Amino acid sequence: MQRVVVTGGAGFIGTYVACKLREHGIETIALDRSGEGADLLRADIRDRDTMRRILQPADAVIHLAVTSNPTTSELDRIRDIEENLVGTLELLDACVDRGVGRFVLSSSGGTVYGIPQTTPIPETHATNPISSHGAMKLAIEKYVQVYGAQFGLSHVILRCANAYGPGQTGALGQGIIGRAILTGLRDETLEIWGDGTAVRDFACVEDVAEAFLLATTTVTAEGVVNIGSGKGTSVNEIIELLNRTTGRPLRVRYTAPRYLDVPASVLDITKASTVLNWRPVTALEDGIERCYAWARSHIHQQAT
Amino acid sequence: MQRVVVTGGAGFIGTYVACKLREHGIETIALDRSGEGADLLRADIRDRDTMRRILQPADAVIHLAVTSNPTTSELDRIRDIEENLVGTLELLDACVDRGVGRFVLSSSGGTVYGIPQTTPIPETHATNPISSHGAMKLAIEKYVQVYGAQFGLSHVILRCANAYGPGQTGALGQGIIGRAILTGLRDETLEIWGDGTAVRDFACVEDVAEAFLLATTTVTAEGVVNIGSGKGTSVNEIIELLNRTTGRPLRVRYTAPRYLDVPASVLDITKASTVLNWRPVTALEDGIERCYAWARSHIHQQAT
Repeated sequence: MQRVVVTGGAGFIGTYVACKLREHGIETIALDRSGEGADLLRADIRDRDTMRRILQPADAVIHLAVTSNPTTSELDRIRDIEENLVGTLELLDACVDRGVGRFVLSSSGGTVYGIPQTTPIPETHATNPISSHGAMKLAIEKYVQVYGAQFGLSHVILRCANAYGPGQTGALGQGIIGRAILTGLRDETLEIWGDGTAVRDFACVEDVAEAFLLATTTVTAEGVVNIGSGKGTSVNEIIELLNRTTGRPLRVRYTAPRYLDVPASVLDITKASTVLNWRPVTALEDGIERCYAWARSHIHQQAT
Repeated sequence: MQRVVVTGGAGFIGTYVACKLREHGIETIALDRSGEGADLLRADIRDRDTMRRILQPADAVIHLAVTSNPTTSELDRIRDIEENLVGTLELLDACVDRGVGRFVLSSSGGTVYGIPQTTPIPETHATNPISSHGAMKLAIEKYVQVYGAQFGLSHVILRCANAYGPGQTGALGQGIIGRAILTGLRDETLEIWGDGTAVRDFACVEDVAEAFLLATTTVTAEGVVNIGSGKGTSVNEIIELLNRTTGRPLRVRYTAPRYLDVPASVLDITKASTVLNWRPVTALEDGIERCYAWARSHIHQQAT
């Protein structure tokens, strides 16, 4: 693997993925529609000419770009489809056109399955999302598979659990850990949807980035792979762990649960160890500590 | 069920469905973007104001409208998504807005499953389409389910096998039975993709229309239901049956198989009998005879 293009390269996971690839000596072109920098190229995946120019010599594409999250997908489903599903089709066309050999998709382990019938959830579990974000991500998965079947585009679809880690500010309403830390540092009250018993699978972003590296370089890997911790942690347990780390209890206000949230989501990560030889290495306690350390040195200064 | 709106009401299946509903004393508003007549209203599902006006007093919507088929979906995937997936979201929004109580979707039993792992295929089978048409139809299914989960929209999704019957001319490149009969009557040569061993599940359109009636009126029914004959018939067997009916062998030319066609597709229809109390009643031989009789009295005259 010589040259890899990363879409959404300025995002939370994208930044780590680009970093990880470069550490491993892979020439990495990180794209983002929102920014430009020394290691970042401003480009929109829907800009055909630009994408064809960028992809000309690429061996693989890691597609992390997404303009929505579970909250915003519901607010404008049609825009969500046009930007993300249609955007991915345009990217796939460009990949096929330019002979890109491998496509690694970031999918949403927390939303594509819907309400779990078994826990932890294996990749073979039925996919019946109850949120538009899940339906959109699942549709993208299916089209990637169609391109695989029709054009021989080799692909891995990583269904990622809730990624967290240093750098996640929670400012966009996503990432309960980052949001809780930020709220605490600002001495504000954390709003939690529901009663805090909702169980999620939290994966440290560094482990997730390693999975993207392996999915890109393990040429024998193909198909859908769950990436998570394999363990369930309730939102209340996260708050407890965080209180233990900070030494001061966070003020919490419970609000109505959201209709689009599933009660529990824990991924079975057996396949990832078999197919990618990947295992998560960061304990949740350690990860939360690192988040807190990062936030104290970064966010506190920025707070006005 | 007092008043039902049928989209795609001028289409092959839609015509039969509207007819069947009216036979059962249900007030039926058949819509189609392509035509207008005594029993047909010209309307595009993407026209918000018109749809809201039409749906105002509707108890149920049967959504059969689709602007693509497996061939044309591949030619312009993005247009396919915009017209059909986005179009369905607009229709669903209008339904929720107008308090429509029930939504019956026509899905594609022949494409949403992809390459079957078991035969016949039950509704619980994995859905990994290898064609864009299948991916598009599956995405529509998932959004219908999201509207069910979020807005309580009661729905039945009928995954229909290959419908055939009087009225299907095969002129649009769809429907091997209609196309074969037309070709024979014109004394032309039938082109078959592949070697004719591809196995399909052929369901007589009158039986299919009965299933749509039952899916609409059986208020206890919910979720995905296969509609087919439950039996597999190869394309070559169809030609044989047809030759026996007409008494003169059809000239056939085999061409390269299409990458988007699955080798076999036979649906398990057990659930339809349980949930809808529906069973197909037309034997394939009888159905083909009726198609031929219809075609002789209709198509021959039109041929120039």
